[in-house]
Amino acid sequence: MNQPANKNYARLCEHFQSISHFEHLGALGDWDQAAMMPVGGGEVRGAAMAELAKHIHSLKTATMLAPTIAEAELEELNWQQKANLREIRYQYQQANIVPGSLVEAKTKAAYRCEQAWREQRNQNDWQGFKPNLESVLALAKEEADIRAAALNISPYDALLDKFEPGMTSGRLEQIFGGLKSWLPGLIEQVQDKQKHQARYAIPHAASDAQALFSRDVMTLLGFDFNHGRLDTSSHPFCGGVASDVRLTTRYDEADFTSGLMGVVHETGHAKYEQGLPLDWRGQPAGLARSMAIHESQSLFCEMQLGRGSAFLALLQPKLKQRLDCNLSHDQLLNIYSRVTPGNIRVDADEVTYPCHILLRFEAEKALVSNQLAVSDLPDFWSAQMQSLLGINTDGDYKNGCMQDIHWAVGEMGYFPSYTLGAMYAAQFRVAMEQQLGSVETLIANGELSSVMGWLNDNIWSKGSLLTTDELALQATGETLNPAHFKQHLIQRFSA
Amino acid sequence: MNQPANKNYARLCEHFQSISHFEHLGALGDWDQAAMMPVGGGEVRGAAMAELAKHIHSLKTATMLAPTIAEAELEELNWQQKANLREIRYQYQQANIVPGSLVEAKTKAAYRCEQAWREQRNQNDWQGFKPNLESVLALAKEEADIRAAALNISPYDALLDKFEPGMTSGRLEQIFGGLKSWLPGLIEQVQDKQKHQARYAIPHAASDAQALFSRDVMTLLGFDFNHGRLDTSSHPFCGGVASDVRLTTRYDEADFTSGLMGVVHETGHAKYEQGLPLDWRGQPAGLARSMAIHESQSLFCEMQLGRGSAFLALLQPKLKQRLDCNLSHDQLLNIYSRVTPGNIRVDADEVTYPCHILLRFEAEKALVSNQLAVSDLPDFWSAQMQSLLGINTDGDYKNGCMQDIHWAVGEMGYFPSYTLGAMYAAQFRVAMEQQLGSVETLIANGELSSVMGWLNDNIWSKGSLLTTDELALQATGETLNPAHFKQHLIQRFSA
Repeated sequence: MNQPANKNYARLCEHFQSISHFEHLGALGDWDQAAMMPVGGGEVRGAAMAELAKHIHSLKTATMLAPTIAEAELEELNWQQKANLREIRYQYQQANIVPGSLVEAKTKAAYRCEQAWREQRNQNDWQGFKPNLESVLALAKEEADIRAAALNISPYDALLDKFEPGMTSGRLEQIFGGLKSWLPGLIEQVQDKQKHQARYAIPHAASDAQALFSRDVMTLLGFDFNHGRLDTSSHPFCGGVASDVRLTTRYDEADFTSGLMGVVHETGHAKYEQGLPLDWRGQPAGLARSMAIHESQSLFCEMQLGRGSAFLALLQPKLKQRLDCNLSHDQLLNIYSRVTPGNIRVDADEVTYPCHILLRFEAEKALVSNQLAVSDLPDFWSAQMQSLLGINTDGDYKNGCMQDIHWAVGEMGYFPSYTLGAMYAAQFRVAMEQQLGSVETLIANGELSSVMGWLNDNIWSKGSLLTTDELALQATGETLNPAHFKQHLIQRFSA
Repeated sequence: MNQPANKNYARLCEHFQSISHFEHLGALGDWDQAAMMPVGGGEVRGAAMAELAKHIHSLKTATMLAPTIAEAELEELNWQQKANLREIRYQYQQANIVPGSLVEAKTKAAYRCEQAWREQRNQNDWQGFKPNLESVLALAKEEADIRAAALNISPYDALLDKFEPGMTSGRLEQIFGGLKSWLPGLIEQVQDKQKHQARYAIPHAASDAQALFSRDVMTLLGFDFNHGRLDTSSHPFCGGVASDVRLTTRYDEADFTSGLMGVVHETGHAKYEQGLPLDWRGQPAGLARSMAIHESQSLFCEMQLGRGSAFLALLQPKLKQRLDCNLSHDQLLNIYSRVTPGNIRVDADEVTYPCHILLRFEAEKALVSNQLAVSDLPDFWSAQMQSLLGINTDGDYKNGCMQDIHWAVGEMGYFPSYTLGAMYAAQFRVAMEQQLGSVETLIANGELSSVMGWLNDNIWSKGSLLTTDELALQATGETLNPAHFKQHLIQRFSA
């Protein structure tokens, strides 16, 4: 019999290919329930998604995996195959820690909580939301405790590790502590500087026209509509799978500017997904590296690129055409450079955004370590908003602790990825400019594709073949270095 | 230990509840690929759906089923539980006949063929479609042969049995032979009668306005938008699950009349799904009875009810309001009573429609029994259309043998259900009128809900608790009797 040399590795690949097919259906279910599903479909869908989660979990913890992985590690593999095997092992270990019954219970509770949250948030109904959040949090804590015991780390660190492998609250406290030392001063300084700047009225823009304009912008950024689509949902996100990326946004007719940058942000995520290595589709090594790296791509598009002068110059004539908007390039630049402390994280400018993350990081840590009860969350929120951004959110749950989808679906430990992503984005830009010259000049010269090409070559096409540190090191010559983000903000806002 | 009395039966219920969750995801995938998915997503989706089909097949053929079913049959069950067990056994037997590898291959081939068909049909590209259809047909034949051997019936009968348990080509030849004896004469007679009737121009109607009007009509028919939605697709269908029914339609701006009755038709399917017994959701006994009964509900809505005078009187003022359409009630009635032989099955009137089914029934039988090659299908089609409806379809594949989705997705043996459904619809109406009086009078008196109530009580709420014959017998006092359909057509069109 002619046995393939790497039969154990090949068997693992086949198994994880199957898993990716079920994950495909899960991604579709997630997208659908946020963008399409009528509310009455939620109960049965929740049960179906929980069943699916349980099945995927059973596949990832199949008894054949441990011995097959051990055998595969003795086989002759090239470096990409070794990387894929490393990711397979990681997925197996991660799944094996948590019992299937907990996975199912978590999925069910998350669906129930999120479905209700969609309406409760509109109604500012904290009392309705609270017990659901408590259920979701209890399960998140149960998972955190199990993971913490298995990995010998703290419960909150065990949640962080799900989204950003290897990241710890100790390291985050260091990074965020650094931020806290200079960011409040910068915010004050920029606000002072912008105090006397003119304010421009945003013209009304119909949702239909914004939808067409959004497609223009996505096309400009190279989004492949043959492998994806754009819809609306109450909380914008990028979902689906690499071969079929599902973006959502929302349109505010009174202010198109936030939705527009939301689309640019989500398109950054989408470009990453669409650029993942074709040869590794369906394998763990073909997945996006981590949540921080994912956010680095959306924030690169939104912040580094989208709010820059050259990109806004590309948008300005299209804005005139699609939205009948007469804002000049200078006015757009003014609007998109404005620093204004506000309630809503997703609407925050680049400078105040990290404050929203600092708050959530502290709240998550406290919730998971039982130092904060859900019932005390609104007061904690308001106090932190007061201290960080001078805003009182008493009684305004809708624009306070009920604004985000993350906790409603049980994703505790995700928020730090946003600010880590902003830091990686700044770091990638510095490296890119060392090789290609100024990003602003490239775009002004019609070479946006060179910018995208660099991201494709250095980030997207790597999938998970490299570890996060290897990826950063190969792309930029160093691992995460928060100094670039500080430098970027100072240069853009206070120079 | 306190053992439940029916522990084997309970275990089967739990198992089939799981299966229904995976089928939920399959229904979502089907709807999405027809209504939402970009073409480039098709390849990976096809693989995911094939994986899912294989998994569902493995659940339906689990080794525990045979002994557990045997044990459950000895347990004390009430009549509904016995009916559910009968349906469980039937599903197990059906699945057990066909190997999982064939299920997977069929799903893959169907997805590939259908995805390509969507564009090939637009392009009238028979040469492109032919090899895909040959692949799909080869697998359908393989399935037919396996089923035929197991059930000791002919291959084509084995396919019929999937959609209409117990139906045979012998019985269909008898029923359809009866049709052939009087239908051509009726068509000629009605055309002659209508020859001098005025023809009314259909006003242009924007798609957006038609979409709003479609929702009005669905609401009028009692569609529950909290448990379903309406979208567009190139081939209208009713999909999703009972708790979340997904209808699709298409809008022709030059002629809204066909799309409108398409919506009424699909809403008939949807009402059946939404009316299935809540207590049996997720169990085989809670599913719709058969394809013919399903079509009886859509055709009851579209033909018995939708094209009747009283229902059109309800629509007329709304048509004026939403579509700025000035057609009078008489003119609408004239339009919807018009009998005109045409190419397209889904656009056919009530009288010529069965001819489209006769053609497809003959073609399917011949294809499956190797008496007709795919390459000869267009000629066969054109000859039959010529003979049945006096229409030449030479070279017009798009409006000929490429018009339907059914064969593209490997559904051979489905088409007869449409005409069986029309016959059941006529039979149900007779029984309903014996109990409630004239349907036309009920609607004219604002009692459409009584009509729906009868269908709910006698058909929808029964799910699969009764066999098809039991259902017809309880509802109408007899099993399928094609005489009512003949009587209906004669009364409506030639009286």
